[in-house]
Amino acid sequence: MKNIAVLTSGGDAPGMNAALRAIVLTCLQYKYTITGYYHGYNGLINGESKQIHVDDVNGIIGRGGTILKSARCPAMLSDNGIKQAVSTLMKDKIDALIVIGGDGSFAGLLEIAKYWQGQVIGIPGTIDNDVDQTDFTIGFSTAVNTAIEAIDKIRDTADAFERVFIVEVMGRHSGFITFNVGIASAAEQVLSFENFDCVNKETRLNELSNSIKNAQSNRHSSYLIVIAENLWPEGTTELAKNLTELTGIDCTPCILGYIQRGGSPVAKDRLLATKLGVASVQALAEGKTNLMMGEQNNTVVEVPLRQSINHQKGVSKSLIKAQTDILSVPKQSQI
Amino acid sequence: MKNIAVLTSGGDAPGMNAALRAIVLTCLQYKYTITGYYHGYNGLINGESKQIHVDDVNGIIGRGGTILKSARCPAMLSDNGIKQAVSTLMKDKIDALIVIGGDGSFAGLLEIAKYWQGQVIGIPGTIDNDVDQTDFTIGFSTAVNTAIEAIDKIRDTADAFERVFIVEVMGRHSGFITFNVGIASAAEQVLSFENFDCVNKETRLNELSNSIKNAQSNRHSSYLIVIAENLWPEGTTELAKNLTELTGIDCTPCILGYIQRGGSPVAKDRLLATKLGVASVQALAEGKTNLMMGEQNNTVVEVPLRQSINHQKGVSKSLIKAQTDILSVPKQSQI
Amino acid sequence: MKNIAVLTSGGDAPGMNAALRAIVLTCLQYKYTITGYYHGYNGLINGESKQIHVDDVNGIIGRGGTILKSARCPAMLSDNGIKQAVSTLMKDKIDALIVIGGDGSFAGLLEIAKYWQGQVIGIPGTIDNDVDQTDFTIGFSTAVNTAIEAIDKIRDTADAFERVFIVEVMGRHSGFITFNVGIASAAEQVLSFENFDCVNKETRLNELSNSIKNAQSNRHSSYLIVIAENLWPEGTTELAKNLTELTGIDCTPCILGYIQRGGSPVAKDRLLATKLGVASVQALAEGKTNLMMGEQNNTVVEVPLRQSINHQKGVSKSLIKAQTDILSVPKQSQI
Amino acid sequence: MKNIAVLTSGGDAPGMNAALRAIVLTCLQYKYTITGYYHGYNGLINGESKQIHVDDVNGIIGRGGTILKSARCPAMLSDNGIKQAVSTLMKDKIDALIVIGGDGSFAGLLEIAKYWQGQVIGIPGTIDNDVDQTDFTIGFSTAVNTAIEAIDKIRDTADAFERVFIVEVMGRHSGFITFNVGIASAAEQVLSFENFDCVNKETRLNELSNSIKNAQSNRHSSYLIVIAENLWPEGTTELAKNLTELTGIDCTPCILGYIQRGGSPVAKDRLLATKLGVASVQALAEGKTNLMMGEQNNTVVEVPLRQSINHQKGVSKSLIKAQTDILSVPKQSQI
Repeated sequence: MKNIAVLTSGGDAPGMNAALRAIVLTCLQYKYTITGYYHGYNGLINGESKQIHVDDVNGIIGRGGTILKSARCPAMLSDNGIKQAVSTLMKDKIDALIVIGGDGSFAGLLEIAKYWQGQVIGIPGTIDNDVDQTDFTIGFSTAVNTAIEAIDKIRDTADAFERVFIVEVMGRHSGFITFNVGIASAAEQVLSFENFDCVNKETRLNELSNSIKNAQSNRHSSYLIVIAENLWPEGTTELAKNLTELTGIDCTPCILGYIQRGGSPVAKDRLLATKLGVASVQALAEGKTNLMMGEQNNTVVEVPLRQSINHQKGVSKSLIKAQTDILSVPKQSQI
Repeated sequence: MKNIAVLTSGGDAPGMNAALRAIVLTCLQYKYTITGYYHGYNGLINGESKQIHVDDVNGIIGRGGTILKSARCPAMLSDNGIKQAVSTLMKDKIDALIVIGGDGSFAGLLEIAKYWQGQVIGIPGTIDNDVDQTDFTIGFSTAVNTAIEAIDKIRDTADAFERVFIVEVMGRHSGFITFNVGIASAAEQVLSFENFDCVNKETRLNELSNSIKNAQSNRHSSYLIVIAENLWPEGTTELAKNLTELTGIDCTPCILGYIQRGGSPVAKDRLLATKLGVASVQALAEGKTNLMMGEQNNTVVEVPLRQSINHQKGVSKSLIKAQTDILSVPKQSQI
Repeated sequence: MKNIAVLTSGGDAPGMNAALRAIVLTCLQYKYTITGYYHGYNGLINGESKQIHVDDVNGIIGRGGTILKSARCPAMLSDNGIKQAVSTLMKDKIDALIVIGGDGSFAGLLEIAKYWQGQVIGIPGTIDNDVDQTDFTIGFSTAVNTAIEAIDKIRDTADAFERVFIVEVMGRHSGFITFNVGIASAAEQVLSFENFDCVNKETRLNELSNSIKNAQSNRHSSYLIVIAENLWPEGTTELAKNLTELTGIDCTPCILGYIQRGGSPVAKDRLLATKLGVASVQALAEGKTNLMMGEQNNTVVEVPLRQSINHQKGVSKSLIKAQTDILSVPKQSQI
Repeated sequence: MKNIAVLTSGGDAPGMNAALRAIVLTCLQYKYTITGYYHGYNGLINGESKQIHVDDVNGIIGRGGTILKSARCPAMLSDNGIKQAVSTLMKDKIDALIVIGGDGSFAGLLEIAKYWQGQVIGIPGTIDNDVDQTDFTIGFSTAVNTAIEAIDKIRDTADAFERVFIVEVMGRHSGFITFNVGIASAAEQVLSFENFDCVNKETRLNELSNSIKNAQSNRHSSYLIVIAENLWPEGTTELAKNLTELTGIDCTPCILGYIQRGGSPVAKDRLLATKLGVASVQALAEGKTNLMMGEQNNTVVEVPLRQSINHQKGVSKSLIKAQTDILSVPKQSQI
């Protein structure tokens, strides 16, 4: 008989609710009680919690966001915050804490583990996919799909007007979303940290400008650039302005923004969340701790939590190459 | 035996293809030939055309954009442009011209009619719904739906973070999209030309700020403002910045932008486009001219083309009132 | 200060929740309390109720189904059932009862009104659109959209295989869904009560068979028939079998079924539901009773409840004609 | 300089077009010409072909179905058919043949390879995922998503009525779709070949009946069974009838059917198709033959074509276990 606590932390991701549901249903099997802390680590620090029952997770497998709410929690960067969090866990007689979130959330969890004897487990939930030791994070697949559905719509207008659009997608400082979305939406250019440096901006602007001018002079069609947020130093809107001036062709910026975070999770995220949720409770039942549940080669894996936050995972070279291979098509007849 | 010409002009709208399909199928019945001019009036001025056959419209009822391409055409504002357009129509022996577009496109068509003996018919196709004498324009219903689907996703994050989002929707200078989207997405505030003036910006900012502060201090929930593009003089992003400063609460701007224009048309737009497309050819067969095909009270109507561009149609007062009625709910318990 | 009761009855329809939300928010404005009876009239008969608060309707504008649950209630066909319902209303000191449902539900409400002094109001919520005195019922637009999205997918396979599919849609005994879906999905045939009788089945089978054979012999394309449920006496699967035998061409039946009932409501249904919900409480505040709130010509109307169930509304002739006009296209080149 | 031929065969799958696009774009890079055979192997046997150009694949990455058309081709089961196919390839001076399809299509390709010196490559495209040596086939992910979106809608009604639905999904004779869909849609029961035998039907019926009765007597909620097509000997509709009789509770059958085959491919299928399409041409350029391009551990692999059709791939045990783990929840409080 254990008392399991759960919280969701950092940017919300579709599938966080599905993970919570799986945790709750599996706990039920072990007759564990479940305490939900609200608003990420803030709820842990402030003692804002509620018992979670089966009825609370009924029907949430398909809902975006997180019913436990989420938040950034700067207090967790201070010793004081960590100690308050630990104090709540002890006061509430929690045996194990499961955190669904990204690398920042896991760093916080590792801090807690220094001062607390309970079991800790991380479940990777972030649309950015920038967590090591798991092929995919919960929410990533849905975000990619949401983005391509949005870009398919933009393509309609781009085709109708044979116009250039520069579409910015999320991803913080890695190009997982950018490359997946760029290839899947048949973008003419994909610009991300992995294949594009902005050290020499003048050179980059000229290259892009030439590329656009060549393409648009030889054919009549649309031209889409998918670009990572945070890539162009002055922002995507400014890049579009510069390219419009250099090319003499309208280059319209579109910032997809927060529509990429929400929405009903696609099957992949529901399944991943369910598998990781089930596995996390089973690991707790076996007395394990300091782990992240991840998925590698379509199989659930348990990895040391500390190894999940080293930022060593990168966009696969073959994906970057796939985009280049298609793009190397002679420009005069490129689609 | 007539030779019918068709072009799509102005911003593309979902359902333009469905209208073209209906025109082509109905022409077939009358054994009329169909000439498509490409890129809006530019194609008419430059003589860029193609015969349209039944196979060309196979399967396009569900496609966004326009296979005839579209464009803005500043040349149509000059006498010279008009005369070139007329010259093409005469050279190509066109008997009648159907233009699918908005009020600007119809103004151009009226100019052509001054110098040309052929029949002219307008079909209202624009997501903005700002064409008189028709309850709805082709594309409006799809744009509203696309926007609420996007906002439903933003709501997920807003709920998870109990945060304020300011979502800008399209609509040029009228609030049809804004009010329909605002009510249908359960926005806490709907700001458009019809209910919000920016003459005294300081006062407005304070009102909005108080409204947000009251709402957020008394409850824990999200707060969405749906705002019309072109409403706030310095732009929605600047408004969000101002409100963030005044309230001390994060107010995040989201510009939905071009995702609202494309996509597969909803049933309403496919049906409206089909009915208007069929009716336009039937009107031509009866020798009619200078008309816009519209829909009033769910019935197809023929109205003098000139009456369609007076900008007298406004958002229905009952819709504006419906939003107010729900918003007047005492703030401490408002959803 | 009134005590308002609400229930949802009959087949669930997307937008029922949106109507409930609008009722609750408007009641709040008038400081009315709201009692929800569960499982349609069964909850009224059995006294199964709950106070509904603002928090209960938070976020439900976009959810299909009905949080009040629904059910068929044969007991309402008996005097005894009616009296039990009335007895609950009196015991619970209800001042007014709002029923969201279809014609059967309204018939029940009229019976209650015979024995009960409280105010009664009906809000038309059914995907079938078969309620008089309102142009649209809540749920209809969503059901039509869901069906065309499903048929767009079937069309992909039909095109790939150049095959004949016979798709059955819902609608009980009227063709609102059938005609709207058939036209909006570009069906080659639309078969419903309004344009197709099955008195002489042999003749009908031969006509359909010839029509399919002509179409498929002259071109290479798909062929979709959209048919109303309950139309063909032996069922759509049997019809498909008969046509396969007669034509020698595979005619595959697809019963869309229950996927047409659920899902997040489209904007039109959210708006309609919100307007009717607001108006119903306002009418109650003005002391009105025995009304159905409906929408005619895009305007909210109050109609005597009794007039809503006469089954005099039919599919508009122009809609039926629009389909015929497109279908009369010479077969050799038809799309 | 090679002349590459492509055909799509067997049931169409979302992403077949994306694969074709990638093949065409990559061929362009190598200056290979591309010949498309239509209607699967029938086009090869009958010499029905067309040169495929870049413009033909513009915009098709997001379209369901296959622009090359598909078909079953019984003639390929005979020596005569195979020889005719080979004869066309020789007459058309084809150097390499890429077939996008399932195991049956690959069996045909292996037969062709016996009599023909050209290079042959298979790309796994089928929603059923029943091809060995590749973790996923093109189309599978989209089909699973389409099914869960449909079931989410059915769940709305099931919840509103607290009713039992038995939803049949595709998958021929394997449970990939069934298990993925069942878990991702939070089904109360998942019935497939892997976990359910029908040898003793009476016993099975009684078990299912008890399971339904227990669940429905102890709680008020919906109950969904996701079942594989071809599993219950007399069909899913008959199973529903039997269970309705045994339980005294309405068990409604829903056959999802052909809506699962079409639709715009999800990102996963677009990416998989693009990667396999690019890789297949690159393999041909390197002189390779008799291969299937597949994906294992998120990496493109080349496997001997013959190894792809042994039917040794099964639903992963962990997936089956995940469903069981959640289902073992004590019935009285199960969701």
